[in-house]
Amino acid sequence: MTSTIDHQISQMTLEEKAAFVAGADMWKTASLERLDIDSIYMYDGTNGIRKTQTTNELGIFAGNNIPATCYPTGSTLGASWNVELLREIGEALGVEGKHLDIDLLLGPGINMKRSPLGGRNFEYYSEDPCLSGELGAAFVNGLQSEGVGASLKHFACNNQETEKMAMSSEVDERTLREIYLNAFERVVKKANPWTIMCSYNLLNGEYTSENDHLQREILREEWGYDGVVMSDWTAVHDRIRALKVGLDLEMPGQAHHNRTLIIEAVKSGELAEATLDDSVRRMLALYDKVQAGKKLGKAYDWEAHHALAYRAAVESIVLLKNESGTLPLRAESLASLAVIGGLAKAPRYQGGGSARVNPTKLDIPYEEIVRVAGNDTAVSFSAGYRSDEVEDEAQDDALIAESVALAAQADAAVLFVGKPEGAESEGFDLKDIDLPPQQVKLIQAVAAVQPKCIVVLSNGSAIAMSSWIDGVPAIVDMWLAGQAGGSAIADILFGLRNPSGKLSETFPVKLSDNPSFLSFGGEGGKAVYSEGLFTGYRYYDKKELAPQFPFGHGLSYTTFEYSGLSMSGGAEGVTVKCSVRNSGAMTGQEVVQLYVHDEQCRWIRPVKELKAFRKIELHPGEETEIVFLLEPRDFSYYDPDRKQWTADSGDFEIIIGSSSADVRLSHRILLEFPATGFRYHEYSLLKEWLDNPQASPILMKSLAEMNRNSKDQVSIEEPGVIGFFGDAPLIKLFQMFGQDWLVDQSPEQYVRGMIQEYERVCG
Amino acid sequence: MTSTIDHQISQMTLEEKAAFVAGADMWKTASLERLDIDSIYMYDGTNGIRKTQTTNELGIFAGNNIPATCYPTGSTLGASWNVELLREIGEALGVEGKHLDIDLLLGPGINMKRSPLGGRNFEYYSEDPCLSGELGAAFVNGLQSEGVGASLKHFACNNQETEKMAMSSEVDERTLREIYLNAFERVVKKANPWTIMCSYNLLNGEYTSENDHLQREILREEWGYDGVVMSDWTAVHDRIRALKVGLDLEMPGQAHHNRTLIIEAVKSGELAEATLDDSVRRMLALYDKVQAGKKLGKAYDWEAHHALAYRAAVESIVLLKNESGTLPLRAESLASLAVIGGLAKAPRYQGGGSARVNPTKLDIPYEEIVRVAGNDTAVSFSAGYRSDEVEDEAQDDALIAESVALAAQADAAVLFVGKPEGAESEGFDLKDIDLPPQQVKLIQAVAAVQPKCIVVLSNGSAIAMSSWIDGVPAIVDMWLAGQAGGSAIADILFGLRNPSGKLSETFPVKLSDNPSFLSFGGEGGKAVYSEGLFTGYRYYDKKELAPQFPFGHGLSYTTFEYSGLSMSGGAEGVTVKCSVRNSGAMTGQEVVQLYVHDEQCRWIRPVKELKAFRKIELHPGEETEIVFLLEPRDFSYYDPDRKQWTADSGDFEIIIGSSSADVRLSHRILLEFPATGFRYHEYSLLKEWLDNPQASPILMKSLAEMNRNSKDQVSIEEPGVIGFFGDAPLIKLFQMFGQDWLVDQSPEQYVRGMIQEYERVCG
Repeated sequence: MTSTIDHQISQMTLEEKAAFVAGADMWKTASLERLDIDSIYMYDGTNGIRKTQTTNELGIFAGNNIPATCYPTGSTLGASWNVELLREIGEALGVEGKHLDIDLLLGPGINMKRSPLGGRNFEYYSEDPCLSGELGAAFVNGLQSEGVGASLKHFACNNQETEKMAMSSEVDERTLREIYLNAFERVVKKANPWTIMCSYNLLNGEYTSENDHLQREILREEWGYDGVVMSDWTAVHDRIRALKVGLDLEMPGQAHHNRTLIIEAVKSGELAEATLDDSVRRMLALYDKVQAGKKLGKAYDWEAHHALAYRAAVESIVLLKNESGTLPLRAESLASLAVIGGLAKAPRYQGGGSARVNPTKLDIPYEEIVRVAGNDTAVSFSAGYRSDEVEDEAQDDALIAESVALAAQADAAVLFVGKPEGAESEGFDLKDIDLPPQQVKLIQAVAAVQPKCIVVLSNGSAIAMSSWIDGVPAIVDMWLAGQAGGSAIADILFGLRNPSGKLSETFPVKLSDNPSFLSFGGEGGKAVYSEGLFTGYRYYDKKELAPQFPFGHGLSYTTFEYSGLSMSGGAEGVTVKCSVRNSGAMTGQEVVQLYVHDEQCRWIRPVKELKAFRKIELHPGEETEIVFLLEPRDFSYYDPDRKQWTADSGDFEIIIGSSSADVRLSHRILLEFPATGFRYHEYSLLKEWLDNPQASPILMKSLAEMNRNSKDQVSIEEPGVIGFFGDAPLIKLFQMFGQDWLVDQSPEQYVRGMIQEYERVCG
Repeated sequence: MTSTIDHQISQMTLEEKAAFVAGADMWKTASLERLDIDSIYMYDGTNGIRKTQTTNELGIFAGNNIPATCYPTGSTLGASWNVELLREIGEALGVEGKHLDIDLLLGPGINMKRSPLGGRNFEYYSEDPCLSGELGAAFVNGLQSEGVGASLKHFACNNQETEKMAMSSEVDERTLREIYLNAFERVVKKANPWTIMCSYNLLNGEYTSENDHLQREILREEWGYDGVVMSDWTAVHDRIRALKVGLDLEMPGQAHHNRTLIIEAVKSGELAEATLDDSVRRMLALYDKVQAGKKLGKAYDWEAHHALAYRAAVESIVLLKNESGTLPLRAESLASLAVIGGLAKAPRYQGGGSARVNPTKLDIPYEEIVRVAGNDTAVSFSAGYRSDEVEDEAQDDALIAESVALAAQADAAVLFVGKPEGAESEGFDLKDIDLPPQQVKLIQAVAAVQPKCIVVLSNGSAIAMSSWIDGVPAIVDMWLAGQAGGSAIADILFGLRNPSGKLSETFPVKLSDNPSFLSFGGEGGKAVYSEGLFTGYRYYDKKELAPQFPFGHGLSYTTFEYSGLSMSGGAEGVTVKCSVRNSGAMTGQEVVQLYVHDEQCRWIRPVKELKAFRKIELHPGEETEIVFLLEPRDFSYYDPDRKQWTADSGDFEIIIGSSSADVRLSHRILLEFPATGFRYHEYSLLKEWLDNPQASPILMKSLAEMNRNSKDQVSIEEPGVIGFFGDAPLIKLFQMFGQDWLVDQSPEQYVRGMIQEYERVCG
């Protein structure tokens, strides 16, 4: 293949090469007819395909995209915690993509949810990189197995919409590696996406499209990625620099300007033609994958895909609260049910912006509830609130009064609430995480008259509930559940399905509890990620701050018992086993979550971090054993000084939970990792000399020498000396007290002599 | 003077100059006998003078320093909020210093209290730079008025003891200016200290002793400081670089080595002799001040100084909680009083490390309570806990049982508790902010049997109380109250004095609530100040996190009423007036606190910031009017891009409080500051073009031109366009849609044309 590609490159003119590394229009690459190379076609699609009717519209403003299955959004699927499900959705999108003559799908989006205000959160899976990365890898593997390439986005650290094209995300190296790049690294290594899309923002002062550290050093050299890196639409600024760091494809392509710039740069020698050839080579390899992919193609059955969308919604809906067995509803013992809230008839089932899909079908929650309720239950409806945002308190209060009257007469009430459509979309961040005030009033008023009051949320990100949660016995989060969300929620409410979704993000009590709250949005062109490693549950754990609902939380209509935690292995890898039994009366699924707590690390670490998870289905009474394999990386932090992943020897706690706060089993294991040699320098600390058995004799000899030759007498045994100098560089002791002794040599020279002696002793 | 100094310099050899910019031993500079220049003598002393018996001992380990008045520690004085008191203490230290032949006193320390774990917090005034700076300036003015120079320390960003000589404090420029340098700037500008002492740590990667930005750019050039900068003991690493940035005096002086290095560097041309001369000149100017100071000298009356130490303690003791009129105790109606806790007989009245003073006298709380109680009240004593730290649960429980029995029989109990001596000292940070477990058990057990249970705290920094506070009706914080603290606390407990201290630092509910908690201590050689501007109350305010006791909190035995807030003036300066009346029955002092809230700033700002305060004394029924003058700087933030203090026009709320959480009066004022010209660049945002009345016509013309010439049609009126592109650079719109239009010129060229047109329009 490579030799064919090299041959193709040798046939191309400089002008053709320059044209080939940019888009021809909004949705395709340039074709080279002389060389029989067609365009590569790509469309948006993180939760369904958004193919525009004409190739030259952005498709954000118009609504006439070609119909396609609208799956639950990324944020919804994140709550499924089901790797296999994500692979199936990837496959289905691949099949559908082939049907629509699409070569590349511009997804998945796997950025971290840094703040619930992030305008694009609804496209992303989680606040945790392990969960996001595993789900993303499965999606990409599924998609690409059907011959359609993925474009993993947005690389990297695009976690806000506010001035996203002009802001620099300021992220320290350790946080970058452990949190924000971690999911990308997992997907690159486990699924090798055909393409990766850079983000709009700058990262530590350089646009990600032109960021040498990000694109070349980390992605290409460290991770060994050899696919195509493309720009987000208009994200390239300095085309020559972008090529030099390995950004191959500029989209949608800047007319003639950058093409001309490339040609001039090669001619002037500013850009080596070999560098351009590298990008052309990766583009040709992508082209070969696309051609091979065209030979694949299963039949597209849109009803089967709707069924998959249904299953995805069922697995992602999270039962947040369920007191006194409020849910499931039993149609046979429920004479009347009040359904309240316009979202029951006009559901929010996806987000705004480039993810917007024109669905093949749409299940309406109210209609589905009527279906499931059957003849046993009389279902009534009241809008509860207006969908427009014009202020009209009298009308609002009338709507609430109507709903209250309905709810008071019924045996139970289900309220469909959520932020209005316009509040969550690509392009801007949310202003708050509260439900609209009228909806809060509605919930409070209905709950006051109807004890069996069930709130169903539709939202792309966490919602604050403290003002109304106490009065409500049951809360279900259906997220933005895709085109089959209506049937899924109806079946769950009535117990035809058992909810199994778990939160993939922490729900705070109030917005200001969020770890990024103090710095989110940025200022002066910089968005400082000041919370560092402590995103999501890592923050709430460490700060001992109780969230409304913790990461990983989600209830079921059945119960699960955990037992038999055992561990084997060592630093080279640990095998963890435990058993889970369905101890309730209904078949259900449980997400078993494994967290690691590093007890003795010298570096600051989160209280615990998710390192593995497994979703299992169990019939009543059934038990199964789960086996997790942990690698050294699962115990490591990134050491920015040594530029490598490092694990410190010591005790680690392995924690098995049903959520991050609901620990079921835990066990300690001592792991001895290979020591990384310690190197002394002139400013090494007194304690570093004292604590090392091979170095301390040299230290003691030097102190004795000082005491023999100086009028100052210093004893390491005296608590005051260790108290004052223990944390100080050893050299300070000689500078403070050795002035009448170290005459012929400086303190620096003397310490260098000690270091030489140490190195001699250690061989 | 200068010409004399120039003459002196001309007489000095290079060797003499090199010797003159370093210490001769631990506590004095080099003398130059040939030139009739004596040594300058300096000793530690932030809350009293610590003069060693011999000049060559550090004095930390031995306890035989020359007796001197031990005033309350800095943390204690910070709670006085009394500028005049600090001036008086400075004066008294000057008088005492003269008496002890001291030329320079190595204080005050005015670093911010970033964390209650900071091992040296007890030396520092506050978490707020306004309070620290005003108190520090008064202290320096008082001291220097008596002919003894101050050494303002530790410059800068030394806020932890952990590896303080090897750690880099990583602080963004805005936080540096607004928080960590702010108090230093106030003292430099208001009191011109004779010397400033650099800190041990690195600041943003460079030792503060050699930090060009800190020492030369900010201190010398911006603030215009022309005094001597000296090193903390052994804090110099590269002597030549230190001289180049303006660090004049190296202490205690590195034998011959650095002297030789300086001589060689001048000879080789690496160091300009003029640079060395600058330091010599500042040293000679200091020498002149020292000589002039020697002519001053009031009589030293140690009993008067003890009385001042008493007054300082009385003003600094904070009444934290006082339910049901528990305090003051009335001797006449109190038949018996149980005094519990070893600290009542062996008080902690100062901290450890270089601040350790050998007091001239020591008032013992228990003895003073016996004195005040007189014949009316029988005072008994029980140790309650052991002062050593050996574990012996049986003995601990026996001590508690004894105390409980005593307390149960008495009419009231006063418990003296606090961290043990060894827990707070220079050299290491605290491990927690809890009282020892045995003391917590003691409090709980005593409170269970004695409802009139008063806890008296001795501590250098905030203490967590959530485990025992609910059962205790009265809490008094006496801090480390100096040698007269014993009489001060007795007089306050019995109402002979009215407490008037206010917290100069927030008391959190638990350590993890503290803003620096996630990053305090640092790792890998870096201590990242990740909370940024949000230190102390700025954090609790913004995060809506209730502290145990807020900044500025402190109760009185009387009450105060606030009224009549009025404001006048404008952007050039605002005069704020309000009235305060003593509405209770006892003469008392109140600290009136003025905070400013910036309502409309484009930059992230704290909810409110202390900008002025005044401590006043009022007799019952007496009322006084207070006038504050606010300058433009009081409304400003530091803009790191423009490198200047900037105030944005808009509404500001002026808040008058009795604490940061106890707002008594507030009023809004609209201030129009001179506009700073906006300059467009290629990547200016669409909204920046749209919102500027002079720029938007140019924008509209360009969009019309695009729509005329492109097949793409974009309307700025369509919500989706503003939603998607409003926050984006305008150029992105042309890059996305203008490809068939901008053929002859690039989007960059086109936007540059628009900018030229704008600049033409604006002249």
